[in-house]
Amino acid sequence: MAPEGGAAISRALVEQIVRDVVTKRLGSPDGHGPSKLVVHPSARHMHVCREHLDVLFGPGHELTPERELYQEGNFAAAETVTLIGPRSRVIPNLRILGPLRQKSQIELAFTDAIALGLDNVPVRLSGDTGGTPGAYVMGPKGMVELHEGVIRAAMHVHMNPAEAEYYGVKQGDVMKLRVGGDAGVVFDRVHVRIDPASRLNVHMDTDEANACALHLARDIELISEKRGER
Amino acid sequence: MAPEGGAAISRALVEQIVRDVVTKRLGSPDGHGPSKLVVHPSARHMHVCREHLDVLFGPGHELTPERELYQEGNFAAAETVTLIGPRSRVIPNLRILGPLRQKSQIELAFTDAIALGLDNVPVRLSGDTGGTPGAYVMGPKGMVELHEGVIRAAMHVHMNPAEAEYYGVKQGDVMKLRVGGDAGVVFDRVHVRIDPASRLNVHMDTDEANACALHLARDIELISEKRGER
Repeated sequence: MAPEGGAAISRALVEQIVRDVVTKRLGSPDGHGPSKLVVHPSARHMHVCREHLDVLFGPGHELTPERELYQEGNFAAAETVTLIGPRSRVIPNLRILGPLRQKSQIELAFTDAIALGLDNVPVRLSGDTGGTPGAYVMGPKGMVELHEGVIRAAMHVHMNPAEAEYYGVKQGDVMKLRVGGDAGVVFDRVHVRIDPASRLNVHMDTDEANACALHLARDIELISEKRGER
Repeated sequence: MAPEGGAAISRALVEQIVRDVVTKRLGSPDGHGPSKLVVHPSARHMHVCREHLDVLFGPGHELTPERELYQEGNFAAAETVTLIGPRSRVIPNLRILGPLRQKSQIELAFTDAIALGLDNVPVRLSGDTGGTPGAYVMGPKGMVELHEGVIRAAMHVHMNPAEAEYYGVKQGDVMKLRVGGDAGVVFDRVHVRIDPASRLNVHMDTDEANACALHLARDIELISEKRGER
């Protein structure tokens, strides 16, 4: 409650205070604050290890970058594979994302997984593939059996340490993402992933993007539960 | 704030008060309260009018109920059609839901709409199809051109007047649905549809069900913004 009869302050002073606060919160022109929040839907894709790329595309094959992704160094490759699930259902033209990883991993939306005949795909953070379903992957030079590695990626936000400080979050925290519009949704479990090379960027899958009508969304807000407590 | 030094009351009295309130809120054994909240994903489907059914399946054809739906009188029919979008992309085996309606209408998830080549399908309440995209529909006896009627159904909750009173909502209000779990989501725009014959039941599409991992959900809560104010 505002105290009654407080001292009047000029509009100019209020504006100066607002400017100071906003500059502090959103970062100064030297670039040390958070950048604009960008939300990307990730279509189904594969990350591939050296050994599997050799089998799928031939020994020593190198991925051909076709399109740079928002996170520096990441790219959509020209290479695609065919994914074969149980009961011989297939997903053709599954895009490989580069660069190479230590472990192969396939990220599907549940709609994809169900179409492929996999009804036990868990929601996991990238890299956490223990005990997940496998699949057969076919490339132009050979077939690989993945014993595990098919996941639905948990929604996550990439940010650099300055942005993490701005939001008051640390690695492994969970934030909320509110997407307004006719199909307004609040995603309650957006996992924080901090890296000095990262750009502020939420990754959701196509089911999530379609559920919240991301392409029609009028306003989007990344919310830290902790921030209100500061 | 609780007043300090209030009179102590016995545990038994507290339990009696809780029982009374819960009985009032959740309904007495005569069945006048809300029933258990049931959430169903609706796969893509078509509602068909008499005139179109005649063209698609032959004059005077009657739908064959194959499976009763949760809302009394509604059923999945044995009949399916083929949906043809722009650029000749098709969705085969699109299920018809009965009974007949005054206007034909096709409800797709955005994933379906995009697969069909329709990128301008709006989020609409059932029946509100003015200005929506059309499509060609093929049945065993003929083809129909729908000039409009393809929508993504806005998420909605069916309830009877007693349930509406319990939640403190009226026809056309919007509630929230919180789905807990690894992919926890709050849907902010669940439209209230009241009918004396309805059973308490949220309908979401497959994108929404997959986004919130409905099949893995541990707890689900229908929330009225107004209820807290009462």
